Amino acid sequence: MEMVMRSYPNDWVADSIMHRKGIGGGSSGVTHELTEETQGTYLYTIGPYADPVLSIEPGDRVIVETRDAFEGKITSESDVPSELLEVPFLNPQCGPIFMAGAEKGDVLAVHIESMAPRGPQPRGTCCMIKEFGGLTSTYYTATLNEPLPEKVRKVKVDEENVYWSDRVTLPYKPHIGTLSCSPQIDSINSLTPDDHGGNMDLPDMGPGTITYLPVRAPGALLYIGDAHACQGDGEVCGVAVEYPTTTAITVDLIKGWTIDWPRLEADDFIMAIGSARPLEDATRIAYRELVRWMVKDYGYDQWDAYMMLSQCGKVRLGNFVDPKYTMGAAISKTYL
Amino acid sequence: MEMVMRSYPNDWVADSIMHRKGIGGGSSGVTHELTEETQGTYLYTIGPYADPVLSIEPGDRVIVETRDAFEGKITSESDVPSELLEVPFLNPQCGPIFMAGAEKGDVLAVHIESMAPRGPQPRGTCCMIKEFGGLTSTYYTATLNEPLPEKVRKVKVDEENVYWSDRVTLPYKPHIGTLSCSPQIDSINSLTPDDHGGNMDLPDMGPGTITYLPVRAPGALLYIGDAHACQGDGEVCGVAVEYPTTTAITVDLIKGWTIDWPRLEADDFIMAIGSARPLEDATRIAYRELVRWMVKDYGYDQWDAYMMLSQCGKVRLGNFVDPKYTMGAAISKTYL
Amino acid sequence: MEMVMRSYPNDWVADSIMHRKGIGGGSSGVTHELTEETQGTYLYTIGPYADPVLSIEPGDRVIVETRDAFEGKITSESDVPSELLEVPFLNPQCGPIFMAGAEKGDVLAVHIESMAPRGPQPRGTCCMIKEFGGLTSTYYTATLNEPLPEKVRKVKVDEENVYWSDRVTLPYKPHIGTLSCSPQIDSINSLTPDDHGGNMDLPDMGPGTITYLPVRAPGALLYIGDAHACQGDGEVCGVAVEYPTTTAITVDLIKGWTIDWPRLEADDFIMAIGSARPLEDATRIAYRELVRWMVKDYGYDQWDAYMMLSQCGKVRLGNFVDPKYTMGAAISKTYL
Amino acid sequence: MEMVMRSYPNDWVADSIMHRKGIGGGSSGVTHELTEETQGTYLYTIGPYADPVLSIEPGDRVIVETRDAFEGKITSESDVPSELLEVPFLNPQCGPIFMAGAEKGDVLAVHIESMAPRGPQPRGTCCMIKEFGGLTSTYYTATLNEPLPEKVRKVKVDEENVYWSDRVTLPYKPHIGTLSCSPQIDSINSLTPDDHGGNMDLPDMGPGTITYLPVRAPGALLYIGDAHACQGDGEVCGVAVEYPTTTAITVDLIKGWTIDWPRLEADDFIMAIGSARPLEDATRIAYRELVRWMVKDYGYDQWDAYMMLSQCGKVRLGNFVDPKYTMGAAISKTYL
Repeated sequence: MEMVMRSYPNDWVADSIMHRKGIGGGSSGVTHELTEETQGTYLYTIGPYADPVLSIEPGDRVIVETRDAFEGKITSESDVPSELLEVPFLNPQCGPIFMAGAEKGDVLAVHIESMAPRGPQPRGTCCMIKEFGGLTSTYYTATLNEPLPEKVRKVKVDEENVYWSDRVTLPYKPHIGTLSCSPQIDSINSLTPDDHGGNMDLPDMGPGTITYLPVRAPGALLYIGDAHACQGDGEVCGVAVEYPTTTAITVDLIKGWTIDWPRLEADDFIMAIGSARPLEDATRIAYRELVRWMVKDYGYDQWDAYMMLSQCGKVRLGNFVDPKYTMGAAISKTYL
Repeated sequence: MEMVMRSYPNDWVADSIMHRKGIGGGSSGVTHELTEETQGTYLYTIGPYADPVLSIEPGDRVIVETRDAFEGKITSESDVPSELLEVPFLNPQCGPIFMAGAEKGDVLAVHIESMAPRGPQPRGTCCMIKEFGGLTSTYYTATLNEPLPEKVRKVKVDEENVYWSDRVTLPYKPHIGTLSCSPQIDSINSLTPDDHGGNMDLPDMGPGTITYLPVRAPGALLYIGDAHACQGDGEVCGVAVEYPTTTAITVDLIKGWTIDWPRLEADDFIMAIGSARPLEDATRIAYRELVRWMVKDYGYDQWDAYMMLSQCGKVRLGNFVDPKYTMGAAISKTYL
Repeated sequence: MEMVMRSYPNDWVADSIMHRKGIGGGSSGVTHELTEETQGTYLYTIGPYADPVLSIEPGDRVIVETRDAFEGKITSESDVPSELLEVPFLNPQCGPIFMAGAEKGDVLAVHIESMAPRGPQPRGTCCMIKEFGGLTSTYYTATLNEPLPEKVRKVKVDEENVYWSDRVTLPYKPHIGTLSCSPQIDSINSLTPDDHGGNMDLPDMGPGTITYLPVRAPGALLYIGDAHACQGDGEVCGVAVEYPTTTAITVDLIKGWTIDWPRLEADDFIMAIGSARPLEDATRIAYRELVRWMVKDYGYDQWDAYMMLSQCGKVRLGNFVDPKYTMGAAISKTYL
Repeated sequence: MEMVMRSYPNDWVADSIMHRKGIGGGSSGVTHELTEETQGTYLYTIGPYADPVLSIEPGDRVIVETRDAFEGKITSESDVPSELLEVPFLNPQCGPIFMAGAEKGDVLAVHIESMAPRGPQPRGTCCMIKEFGGLTSTYYTATLNEPLPEKVRKVKVDEENVYWSDRVTLPYKPHIGTLSCSPQIDSINSLTPDDHGGNMDLPDMGPGTITYLPVRAPGALLYIGDAHACQGDGEVCGVAVEYPTTTAITVDLIKGWTIDWPRLEADDFIMAIGSARPLEDATRIAYRELVRWMVKDYGYDQWDAYMMLSQCGKVRLGNFVDPKYTMGAAISKTYL
């Protein structure tokens, strides 16, 4: 196993699907800023009912100021999360960003270029939230056990490291926890992943990778938020090292390529992403989408793809703590 | 992500838990051979009701001739698995091997040293078995859909590569799919993993790693089989590249260390293993066991371990196709 | 077991929780009509973003014209559902109905008085929809099996019977499949049940019973639709006998009684309702809510309630085919 | 809903499948006694490795003395279960009983005639066992929550009632929790249900009903135990009112009728039984087996059966607390 999350380079992007299929492909577009001020009110539900805060063209760049998942409310290790947080006002999102020309059936490509920490130290926050997490009774896995205690951990984060404790320093491996276009008519809280994307909490969704999202509403309506300075597979306690960032993304529009679920591309692999409960269903979705992708775009026979992934498929557990769980299934580009 | 399964070295074993705690620790024991002839009848159920085929002392080495999961019955790509295979006679096991002095509450440590392919080419077999696999209706996920077609793939395997197709050559990354001590009074078919070990299908359980198994019956009664020349995460079609091997293991006995579920140690990480359905339960077990391990043997506070694993825990999906699914949860030794 | 769904009387309502706690309690309110014309466009997502079609006071009566789940598009047994239906435009809802004075934290009580069939015969529709149902691969339980065939069954329905086939006539046991107040900020498609109610498909939710729904948006915003002329436990093929109705409900508002999940009351039992995946989570929610209800409103000790329900609790499986599954857990009023 | 479990009569048995197909059909066989003395050691694992305690012919009657699930070790409300009970020595079984002529592929029919309480009062025991039950963290649904407290309830049981508390008296509705023939080569602990039967905890499996079990080992090897004086759907706290009985059964052998999973027949319905995790898989198995039964033995078209069960199928939740969960799916004989 790879015990430390590796970083992905940006230099392969000229060979990416985004570059080949995107309308804004080669040309470097305009750069926009989506600051805290421009955003104004952050959003907690992802749908077609909010007015866009920004309009862009295919290939444009956006510099986004994300807030941490608690919108900065947890500032000290003596804070009690349940006294400061109110469901469903968790996991604030930037957006929606309107992509000119995007229509149902298109794909939005989001290349994350860089993620820089913002704000005063200790800017990273982890905590244990009542009835939320992987090793606890929850709202859905409902038991009569006493809840776990609430705990807060404030950690220094810079572009090198996450200073977890006296004993342990973790490498800075930033990624975006929540990324999505709007569903067609639903509006889904920012805690839940589904086929629109949402709160997938995939550690690979960081600088150097491109996420492909299905477009279902006019203008795509891109939402982004929930930056993590690092995160383990599964986000077991329910919370990563949450922190505010300045995140640079390039966004392109792909016509004539319809996908049901989000996909991700890195320098050396492609990944299909499923979100569902139970976790085997998320895994089934991810692998089925990957088989379909290999058949449609890489000329594989369906059964050959299926049997071959049984030998060389790799999975990443995003989270198994949100209202739906997320699994990514990947194959090395070597075999494509 | 790490797109190719890495190989684990053997040279760290002198620093292992097995070396430190095992009765046979430093001394290199006697070498035994468990050939096809010695084994005689291979076994399809793992329990205390079969007579041992071999008795060993702590620290002894055993060279085992494993058969492939179909006991060699599938020899051609025109074979139809359902005509040749009969449930429950799948996944033949070597053993049981009796460990002198082993009692309920002890741990058996199994260091896999090497796995060499045996038999005539093409010695690797993959296939699609009726109502078995990750992307199909099964005996338990019972639907009215027509079953998938049956397919057989015979592949050449040597100590370098698995020659999957004209298009794709995969690296040889051998591991043991099924490893266990006997349950106390039950006898569990060799297709099912549980807290005794069994059919875990973990790609990490290969040369260079040590598996720790709970002892529940007198003499431990070790079973081993189901070698894979390579396998993807989840073993999605239900079958890896199954092949016959000559596998060398060293087996030690640890007193005074009681574990509920199997554990694995490699050069740079430790892993706790859970097997259950749904898959989130396997994940919960694995992470809870890892937290408990960190608390008991590495001095971690429970909540610190829990929150920290949310930042640096890694999981490996063994299978999500067997009657129970297997997940391993791991932490880098750097943080211990 | 009770092999035929029994009918519930209306004559116990004067002893109901609604009667005791509702603002409009004793007094019989104004009667409103919500016809197809008044409704205009039926809705496919349940949220706070649609304008109310009707405003009522606590205790008012509403006569609602519901459309069938396919909005009347399936008219013949030779129809192919996938050619006529378009996701997410399934399961049309009437509403939202604005309840004066309703605020987050209140409860809306909906007494279903009667349900009469509407429209020309054969007015009942059952069908098999591609990748939807309990015994098939689906969008979430994603496999590579060929989908089941699409089938349509049109059946005559009157207030006595459902004329299923030459061989089988089923008793008319009408109920409302989808009933909910709006979530606070989300908008959830009408196919999915959750803690707001939604597509629960509970056969007990028919004439003679009262459903209690949590209020989360100003005015409660009641949605109602998806009438079934009869339905088995679990709605196994994914579709009941769907039909258009004239449904009479009385709606009341309860202050000072906050609930997390929907509840149901009949002449001789109370029921708590959970919706989740996997199905054991729906069952856990339902039973935990029932324990809490017994503790809070009926003076039970928590552990006594828990152990006693282990002896006399009854469950009803609503559906195990929707994006979330629904289970009701009930106790006889005799024991309260 | 039917809020009180009804009793089933015995007078329909002359019209049963057992009567029509059983070798011992019409004739009333010899009566055997399987007393505590004859049984000697009760068994905790169900397999082919124990010697039969009794041999019978098709149609014979056996009067069995079952012990309660704790083998009488819990005698007082001040007892602490975890101090008295030791896994896996829970749920003692009588048997195995050898049926002359039974071979793999046959069916054993077990008609429960009567169940009478035995032993001194209070002879009924309910308790809360550490990490076991529906609303608690368990060995498989592993969390870090503190376990629930351990509680014991001793209750008087006679042939009329279960005297639960000063407030509540429950009707006596006895049934057998655990009933099975031996698996072919496995031996499964008596806490786990699967396709052999086992710990199904179905409240319908009482006097007046016939259970059909697949035969997989020579002589069938019938095991029986785990009597409940009453039990709610799901056995939510993990324990029913456990008690010792004198149970009279008639056992017959059916040739030429092979089934994969247990089935049950009562006066007015037939039921197929599935046991699996997650609970939707148990439900899928039960409904698929019921469809297959209707097709094979009652001339139904597969899709007609599937769509019709969506209108009139009934389910019974056996348990959702054992290592696998049990669901029965039933249809009224009226429709056959």
